[in-house]
Amino acid sequence: MRARKQKSPKAATILSARQARYRHLTHGMQPQALFSDDKIAALHDAALRGLEELGIAFALPEAREIFAKAGAKISDEMVYIGRDIVKEALANCHKEITLKAPNPLYDKAYHQTSLLFTPAGGCPNVSDAIRGRRPGDAQSYSEAVKLTQMLEVLHVQSVAPEPQDIPIHLRHLFMAQTQLSQCDKIISLYARGRGQLMQSFELIKTALDVDDESFQANPHAITIVNSNSPRLFDKPMAQALIDFAHHGQLSVITPFCLAGAMAPVTIEGAMILQHMECLAGITLAQLAKSGAPVSYGGFGSNVDMRSGSPAFGTPEHIKMQILSGQLARHIGLPWRSAAGSASNLGDAQGNLENTNALWGAVLGNANLVLHAAGWLEGGLTFGFEKFITDIEALQIIAEMTSGTEPDEIEDAYQAISDTAPAGHFFDNPHTMTRFKDAFYPPFNADLSNFGTWQANGAQSADMRATAKWQALLEAYQPPQEAGIRQDRMTALLDEFHNLGGAMPLDG
Amino acid sequence: MRARKQKSPKAATILSARQARYRHLTHGMQPQALFSDDKIAALHDAALRGLEELGIAFALPEAREIFAKAGAKISDEMVYIGRDIVKEALANCHKEITLKAPNPLYDKAYHQTSLLFTPAGGCPNVSDAIRGRRPGDAQSYSEAVKLTQMLEVLHVQSVAPEPQDIPIHLRHLFMAQTQLSQCDKIISLYARGRGQLMQSFELIKTALDVDDESFQANPHAITIVNSNSPRLFDKPMAQALIDFAHHGQLSVITPFCLAGAMAPVTIEGAMILQHMECLAGITLAQLAKSGAPVSYGGFGSNVDMRSGSPAFGTPEHIKMQILSGQLARHIGLPWRSAAGSASNLGDAQGNLENTNALWGAVLGNANLVLHAAGWLEGGLTFGFEKFITDIEALQIIAEMTSGTEPDEIEDAYQAISDTAPAGHFFDNPHTMTRFKDAFYPPFNADLSNFGTWQANGAQSADMRATAKWQALLEAYQPPQEAGIRQDRMTALLDEFHNLGGAMPLDG
Repeated sequence: MRARKQKSPKAATILSARQARYRHLTHGMQPQALFSDDKIAALHDAALRGLEELGIAFALPEAREIFAKAGAKISDEMVYIGRDIVKEALANCHKEITLKAPNPLYDKAYHQTSLLFTPAGGCPNVSDAIRGRRPGDAQSYSEAVKLTQMLEVLHVQSVAPEPQDIPIHLRHLFMAQTQLSQCDKIISLYARGRGQLMQSFELIKTALDVDDESFQANPHAITIVNSNSPRLFDKPMAQALIDFAHHGQLSVITPFCLAGAMAPVTIEGAMILQHMECLAGITLAQLAKSGAPVSYGGFGSNVDMRSGSPAFGTPEHIKMQILSGQLARHIGLPWRSAAGSASNLGDAQGNLENTNALWGAVLGNANLVLHAAGWLEGGLTFGFEKFITDIEALQIIAEMTSGTEPDEIEDAYQAISDTAPAGHFFDNPHTMTRFKDAFYPPFNADLSNFGTWQANGAQSADMRATAKWQALLEAYQPPQEAGIRQDRMTALLDEFHNLGGAMPLDG
Repeated sequence: MRARKQKSPKAATILSARQARYRHLTHGMQPQALFSDDKIAALHDAALRGLEELGIAFALPEAREIFAKAGAKISDEMVYIGRDIVKEALANCHKEITLKAPNPLYDKAYHQTSLLFTPAGGCPNVSDAIRGRRPGDAQSYSEAVKLTQMLEVLHVQSVAPEPQDIPIHLRHLFMAQTQLSQCDKIISLYARGRGQLMQSFELIKTALDVDDESFQANPHAITIVNSNSPRLFDKPMAQALIDFAHHGQLSVITPFCLAGAMAPVTIEGAMILQHMECLAGITLAQLAKSGAPVSYGGFGSNVDMRSGSPAFGTPEHIKMQILSGQLARHIGLPWRSAAGSASNLGDAQGNLENTNALWGAVLGNANLVLHAAGWLEGGLTFGFEKFITDIEALQIIAEMTSGTEPDEIEDAYQAISDTAPAGHFFDNPHTMTRFKDAFYPPFNADLSNFGTWQANGAQSADMRATAKWQALLEAYQPPQEAGIRQDRMTALLDEFHNLGGAMPLDG
């Protein structure tokens, strides 16, 4: 271990002391409004009307029973939810949630002004300049978790790249174990059925030595619940809503409303559908257990009419992010958005898409921003180089959240007074006492001039990123409690493995 | 000509019909506020105090005489401007200006909600994937002008790449002639002394057949007036302020306040200095001629403390853009900002910097955004590929300025009603009647999936951009009036050439 640390002196310079500022973020920018409050209320009303009149399908009988008990009308798989039921559910939602991390240093308040970033999620493939593009595997998953541990601007762990070399019935155990033993930050779980969830919950409680009561009091895990737009919750998703509610864990309810494909072609139409589905999910969670921790979520964008692919960072995507924020604030809940790109490369397209989507999330005042580092190909690939270049984008946003600087007009005026016309401020005492920490220090950007840059090998941002993720992984240190958590889990992991893990629930 | 057009059928698909929407833009996003109104007023007050007590240097005797006549105190090159003089000057500024273009179709209203883009300016070098990086020349300048003509999202012409193969005493003639004969959009001039300006003004009037009165009534040209921060206006810049004022042309007064170098290291300090210099420039223009068309300008950013280079798209840059907008609105003037990047490549760094700077300009509600396409190396190089990839960014912002769509909640509700749970909206009548123009069509982005993209040659955004600027240049058609304008200019150009053009004024 010690030898390794000496081999990579670079990591110290990569990770500036300033990154500690990124550990807890609240929005510093005012949210944009695209529609008037009246029009937002009208969209909300249309969604309520839709739930009542058009209904929504729940494939899971247990979910329909819960709705029936609350007075909703049921017909086959369709559930017709009266607006009174929805309104009561909304009234029961907590507006502020404390998310517990394995290390309390990374606990987070989750509410309408918090800003949490997660790396790319849901990617079946992985790619980097050294090893190429390939199916996700255990090693790359572990590497992604380690990088998440090292970068303060990432607040919640993720579930990518998918470790496809681990059998599906054991994969949830591997992913939970990896998160718990290699990272201090908030745990994310895939919701692939009750069997896997219960084993994951047990593993978390055991690794962190948390009793049932504490576990249930505050979420120790989050999951993304995607509806099958339009108007369907499949079995694993509905079960996740129920199970996460029963156990006090956070469901982030996120329709993926692609305008023109799984949602109406207009932004208003896509937003009505998204809102309907969100409200239905929130209501199920609250009916399962009043006060269950839930988050609003939006992942609306448009489909590219030429290729049929989802587009990101487009005007339609940004508009829907802004509107999702307005709708979330209308019902008083924190909400989740995402950055990410559809590009096959981390090139000009990939970076424009990603940066636009990130600004859309910021301007919608999203409270949880998924896929914020490393997402390529609309989520089909986790890119290590893009992970690094995206971290720069996140750190810049994180700097924008900092409060206003101390008022120092008088000092600045003095500095101007002390500097002759056409002079410079380099050696002004006002500069000298502040310059070390005056500005955001670039993470991956190279600001040297063309000649110097060329003399240094003319490296692109991606080439520098390759060196960077390698250096970071080389310098990785496990959490202080990693050994203890691992020891606590060992017997339970053996037991679950002997049981054959748990198979996912079919949709 | 006809043969050429047949060789490049691609241009028709590159330029979507939708780009006509980008011809006249007004801001659709609310401006951000970083400081309170009180604090903005305090910065304004500090700037007024600075002009009164610390003074500002004007190297041009004529400028000092104008200030002296208005009652300012003069000592050597220093001018001490009382706040009453500044206040009266501000009161005399026009808040709304009509910018005349060679083709009236491209005339623009310039005020606090307009949004105008210009391509990269001020670049001595040029670069593209075919011909490499090289000093700017007449051919590349002409190509940049032609591309500006073809893309509706560019509203004002620019002065880059610098045609270095044209002798400096004739270069202004070449640039004005090229703009007038190859493009319909608003003319930009370099302010390099009275001799060159007067010849340029004459050329514009002659080419457009505009009499003195009409020329003076509304600006037919704009120029950027950069102060030499801190607190100096050199001779050509002060002369430009005076000459543009006397002739009714637009001065865009833009200090380049690099915090930590030519400006105080803090954002407040840099903003006080910027504001002082802007106010001084505005005042000189108004004293030269009351009601002279002027624009506020800000180009504040931070210096990279490692390399000493200017940084762009950084948190400090974005904050200063937001504050510049607040200061401009405080004095009621439209203002100019810029996109651009410090990167040596149009890679992840270059695109993140550019996109961030562009969003900073949007969130500061900048009314004129310079360097919005093609700016590399902090302005030292005009990149043709980056020009193309930046156009995508501009068009996406342009789409964000469009008004809210017609209210169609009922239609959208019907579409949701008509679509079964887990169905799709592809063939819904609501989609069918709208899909052709529902979404922004990508300009350079490739949204095909990895397999298709690979089968098509795995082209990066830059590679596609190379094909695109080539196809556009191939399809270029001169303005309808190009021949007439050229004919009108010929004799005058001969005359000016026989006079030896005009040498620039030394600082």
